[in-house]
Amino acid sequence: MADRRAKGEPSLALRAGPKSAMDDFTRRRQKLKRCLKEEGLDALLLTNPLSVSYLTGFSGDSSYLILGAKQTLLVSDGRYAEQITEECPGLEAHIRPPEQRLQEAAAEQLKKMRLRTVGFESASLAVAECEGLRALTPAIDWKGKPDRVEKLRVIKDATEIQQIREAIRIAERAFEMFRPMLRPSDSEKELSDALEMYIRWAGGTCSSFPAIVAVGDRSARPHARPTDRRISDAELLLVDWGACERFYKSDLTRVLLTRKNLSFSRTARKSRAADKLEKIYDVVLGAQEQALRAIRPGVKANDVDAAARKFIAEAGYGQYFTHGLGHGLGLQVHEAPAVRANSTDILQAGMVFTVEPGIYLPGWGGVRIEDDVLVTPDGCEVLTSVAKDWTSIHVGA
Amino acid sequence: MADRRAKGEPSLALRAGPKSAMDDFTRRRQKLKRCLKEEGLDALLLTNPLSVSYLTGFSGDSSYLILGAKQTLLVSDGRYAEQITEECPGLEAHIRPPEQRLQEAAAEQLKKMRLRTVGFESASLAVAECEGLRALTPAIDWKGKPDRVEKLRVIKDATEIQQIREAIRIAERAFEMFRPMLRPSDSEKELSDALEMYIRWAGGTCSSFPAIVAVGDRSARPHARPTDRRISDAELLLVDWGACERFYKSDLTRVLLTRKNLSFSRTARKSRAADKLEKIYDVVLGAQEQALRAIRPGVKANDVDAAARKFIAEAGYGQYFTHGLGHGLGLQVHEAPAVRANSTDILQAGMVFTVEPGIYLPGWGGVRIEDDVLVTPDGCEVLTSVAKDWTSIHVGA
Repeated sequence: MADRRAKGEPSLALRAGPKSAMDDFTRRRQKLKRCLKEEGLDALLLTNPLSVSYLTGFSGDSSYLILGAKQTLLVSDGRYAEQITEECPGLEAHIRPPEQRLQEAAAEQLKKMRLRTVGFESASLAVAECEGLRALTPAIDWKGKPDRVEKLRVIKDATEIQQIREAIRIAERAFEMFRPMLRPSDSEKELSDALEMYIRWAGGTCSSFPAIVAVGDRSARPHARPTDRRISDAELLLVDWGACERFYKSDLTRVLLTRKNLSFSRTARKSRAADKLEKIYDVVLGAQEQALRAIRPGVKANDVDAAARKFIAEAGYGQYFTHGLGHGLGLQVHEAPAVRANSTDILQAGMVFTVEPGIYLPGWGGVRIEDDVLVTPDGCEVLTSVAKDWTSIHVGA
Repeated sequence: MADRRAKGEPSLALRAGPKSAMDDFTRRRQKLKRCLKEEGLDALLLTNPLSVSYLTGFSGDSSYLILGAKQTLLVSDGRYAEQITEECPGLEAHIRPPEQRLQEAAAEQLKKMRLRTVGFESASLAVAECEGLRALTPAIDWKGKPDRVEKLRVIKDATEIQQIREAIRIAERAFEMFRPMLRPSDSEKELSDALEMYIRWAGGTCSSFPAIVAVGDRSARPHARPTDRRISDAELLLVDWGACERFYKSDLTRVLLTRKNLSFSRTARKSRAADKLEKIYDVVLGAQEQALRAIRPGVKANDVDAAARKFIAEAGYGQYFTHGLGHGLGLQVHEAPAVRANSTDILQAGMVFTVEPGIYLPGWGGVRIEDDVLVTPDGCEVLTSVAKDWTSIHVGA
């Protein structure tokens, strides 16, 4: 393919149509503009493609957004002219000529707009790019800050919540196909590939990350890479998957009990291994319930992590819960807030994150249960709905 | 999924096994170490995950590599301890505790090693990360440079060429499945999704980018996003696809003539539209031949672009070849060298890049032919082999 990074990227344009999409983007830009006054800036230069998409609905890249108090300008190139008109009605754009680099075009426009103090995104702009910009704009006083846009993105607006719900619905439809299609001879790799296809059939653009399908003791690795191991090799199957609707992501985990060993059937007499698995499963599910109960605005994210962690520790498995409880979800599959022991985030209504306690016993196996939640004014709404009680995770039983 | 970026990432470990892989990585590190003396550095801190993978074979992320004259140290964390032992036998690793951040651990090790002048990767390290590192290491004199590793990566070693050949073989097998499976009722989106699956069935990890499948006049957009448009809506189908074997990428484009209109059949009398398409196809193919003939060590990359561009211009389509001729291919689907009009790169044996001239007539359609080539000591080898003569691109004819 020709050298253009945005090729094939999903569109952020909303199903609600350009008019209401425009309203969302204008509203987000208005909120961001508050920092101009607060920080004494003439403008912001947004260079992170996620920031540009979030603030304009533009789904391409290689484009910078200049956000001034009075003027907003998207600096892009001819390849995107048509797309900008479609995706960002009413947004002023400067189309650079092919022989001019993006930085040069942005510098030229900043000078033309007579901007003197300009904020930039220090968490995403690389040192060399920043040096290039400074060299092109000796009169500009550049003020880097890592999280101006990220702080807005952490609270999802109604349109974003709708898009996350859609990403979840797609992932859940894919799992509805996945379950009845399981065969004992399927390998982890085959099943991970199949999930990718089911997600696309269900209307998704693609997986939000390469699906984890881990058989037996491989489930003890929280981020196992799919291998040729077959389902029939063990009773336990862990599946961690998510869908990308256009831009927004979902992320779920379930374990399934496959039927190789009848001891896992509800009706058969259970083996000691099955007893152990059921006990661990109950602990993880209980820990998740504790965490869900703790979620509401004003609560510290690390206290939510602690609620789950305490429950697991009291059951004697504390040392086997080896990762944080959850992470924010949105345009990225991992974003703010951090829901873990060393987090300083405070929960607010409109945050969306995963709640995914796990117990991993090396050489034996792991159990993780992961759902996506929205913080509401008085608690939380669990957005995901795949069944997770002990009896419902038996495949074909 | 739990917050860990490398989950599901393909492994860079070589099929040849850990021993020979180790040799490649040691060789690459030895080459890179030359810049220590040249630049008066005590060490390099490699923070770009691609650099770390290229130099060690480690396929995870969240890890920094300290490359000193005498000591090489991978700073990572407990989640990766087992994987580092598997993927990087013999490499010294420092495993940080969970409560310590990666930057803090790296700073601690740099101090311990008494390094005073340290190079960093300015093209990938973000400003905020760099500031964080500087604050943690006030005694270190940091020297940023954008392309120390990239300059090595531009010349592929034998192992890399083998891996790129494998990525091409997978993409070509996928296309062999794709062609006979085409149905008039298939949409661009369905076919793009199907190609993803064929690539995985053929042994690939995934597509190296979302496949472009463009019907009729949509092929005039060099980076068309797949829609619900059906094959039967037009005669022309453009497919731009590539595979990722583990880490290395391939990238090809072919146009196919579908049979809706019998005028495109070899045996039927041709319409004027078919005449126009055949003429344009011949021009693009001829332009590619001109470019391929121009490729050999010592030649300027922009002269190769010019060879194709001149041929297209002389045929009267100069203004419709709207992108550069090609781009390097390797760990990334777009990397050095740049093969376009404003490139300053000089071709060297061992470079691998795409050669992809195109003619795009808005509202009518586009033709692009893309192959991957390796620069050899006396010319070039075309690594891709999907048929592209006029008669062979008729589907089912």
